[in-house]
Amino acid sequence: MPRGHAERFAIGIDLGGTNGRAAVVDSAGRLRGVSKRRLPDRAPEKVADLLSEISREAIASARIAEKDVAAVGVGAAGQIHSGSGVVAMGPNLGWKQVPFAAMLTARLPWQAMLMNDLSAAAWGERCIGAGEGLPDVLLVFVGSGVGSGIIAKGQLYEGAAGVAGELGHTKAVPCGRLCGCGERGCLEAYCGGHNLSAQVTEAVAAGRATRLDTSGGRAVGAGEIEKAALAGDTLARELWDNCQGLLSTAIANFTTLLNPSRVILGGGVLSRSPELKKAVARRALELVSASAREGVQMVDARLGDDAGVIGAGLWALSAAHPERSPS
Amino acid sequence: MPRGHAERFAIGIDLGGTNGRAAVVDSAGRLRGVSKRRLPDRAPEKVADLLSEISREAIASARIAEKDVAAVGVGAAGQIHSGSGVVAMGPNLGWKQVPFAAMLTARLPWQAMLMNDLSAAAWGERCIGAGEGLPDVLLVFVGSGVGSGIIAKGQLYEGAAGVAGELGHTKAVPCGRLCGCGERGCLEAYCGGHNLSAQVTEAVAAGRATRLDTSGGRAVGAGEIEKAALAGDTLARELWDNCQGLLSTAIANFTTLLNPSRVILGGGVLSRSPELKKAVARRALELVSASAREGVQMVDARLGDDAGVIGAGLWALSAAHPERSPS
Repeated sequence: MPRGHAERFAIGIDLGGTNGRAAVVDSAGRLRGVSKRRLPDRAPEKVADLLSEISREAIASARIAEKDVAAVGVGAAGQIHSGSGVVAMGPNLGWKQVPFAAMLTARLPWQAMLMNDLSAAAWGERCIGAGEGLPDVLLVFVGSGVGSGIIAKGQLYEGAAGVAGELGHTKAVPCGRLCGCGERGCLEAYCGGHNLSAQVTEAVAAGRATRLDTSGGRAVGAGEIEKAALAGDTLARELWDNCQGLLSTAIANFTTLLNPSRVILGGGVLSRSPELKKAVARRALELVSASAREGVQMVDARLGDDAGVIGAGLWALSAAHPERSPS
Repeated sequence: MPRGHAERFAIGIDLGGTNGRAAVVDSAGRLRGVSKRRLPDRAPEKVADLLSEISREAIASARIAEKDVAAVGVGAAGQIHSGSGVVAMGPNLGWKQVPFAAMLTARLPWQAMLMNDLSAAAWGERCIGAGEGLPDVLLVFVGSGVGSGIIAKGQLYEGAAGVAGELGHTKAVPCGRLCGCGERGCLEAYCGGHNLSAQVTEAVAAGRATRLDTSGGRAVGAGEIEKAALAGDTLARELWDNCQGLLSTAIANFTTLLNPSRVILGGGVLSRSPELKKAVARRALELVSASAREGVQMVDARLGDDAGVIGAGLWALSAAHPERSPS
């Protein structure tokens, strides 16, 4: 407890498309109490009500006093203006121009701050995870979607409109496969988890033979594709190779442009496909420009699903107590 | 003259592979006196001697007193550690780990600061050129080489090792054409001016018909390729189309990742190929992710060859007088 302050806590919240998860986070990034609930409704008022409730539940579970909480940080998917606390575009929730930080602050005794979910995860990894203490770090996330968070000079970098780091929507294949965003050829349209399983379904519907089980409309996971690819299944191998090639090039070019000292690889697709993750890390390093390659490391994310709540909590705490910011 | 200071000046220097150019720059970025000379020798001591001489010549030509100069900023190509003032790798000069800022400071009555040449140009355009006053700006430069400068949150971003923004060495074609950097498939290997003319020479040597004149080993310029392409020359059209496609995709992906509010296009290849520049700007905007496309503008550079000396001078001046920094 430096400088005579009593220990202060923040609440970190991960707001997904189906669940909200709140955690009390201490200044070292430890989780002290957690509450998670399904969103009953996507109307912003109802979501704010729910997040307010789970925040109080997390506090109760942590057995701390409300007065010891300094701030609330929320990470949400989409285009977020963190300065104004507005969700400009939240595709998972169907939101446009929702002043959500103000709505949540009105329901709580603390200031609520809003940020992009991958920025939150990147900040968490940077503070107490795989990028601890480093000023220039990229978090690359390959899960159902593909995205990233950028730490530059020890600060989050979110761009002019809060959407920097949209690695999943860089164009990997000119005029290629249709992406969920409505455009063609995006990296996510090939390497995101939903799209990997969709590519299997489409290939089977087109008559391709495979040992992957799509019976009854079953969605095939990235781990299954990796196993089948390594066991010699031709379709699985094509998808795996393509995913590896596109991800490696995109991550390498991102690294060449930003020159970080560490690139952190996370997300469900990579964690369930360990050979893919290894191959991507190895090949991406080969493709980085020689000068940006020197001194950069590609490492695994360390905080798993907790990165977002930890990052959002620590970010809110450092905004409330700038003198304790871990820069 | 705010706050009662007398007007102060900086010297901005552009250190190329064959010439040094020094200019006195005032706090509004105006050039007050210029001196340019050919490097007699690439030995760091000789180059420092020359830059010291042309600095004094620029001051004499500006008719100001030495005491009114606050600092010296030098932009040089390559991998520059601006914090320590070391040229880690200067390919044009054949330098490695040269503590050049200290060498120049020892020869002058002012502190010399060192930066990458495209960072200097980006800073110049950001201060008084096509990105004036904007916090998030990219400068994309397509000349004999291809590169960029990044302004993020109103500051230069140079990465962990001083090499952020190496757009020319992002991989555009897996296992593609050999680049001057020794790697394969770099954007510069297709779109840099030297490589454009080399591709013509190679095609002619391989028996391709073209109206482009390569007689006597003549290097064909980007402007000639554009003219021939528009006049229906098949080889020129192939090169022009390929250059347009690769540049558009690379610039679009850079814009998606960094989410700037302005992208500034400069450099000799683009200024001598106005139709190429227009086509690249149009197509790149189409390929940017939808959310990063909102509010971004692709514009022409405004300062031409002066961007580097202006940017290096203003950067040194703002470091010497931080209260006058134009952020």
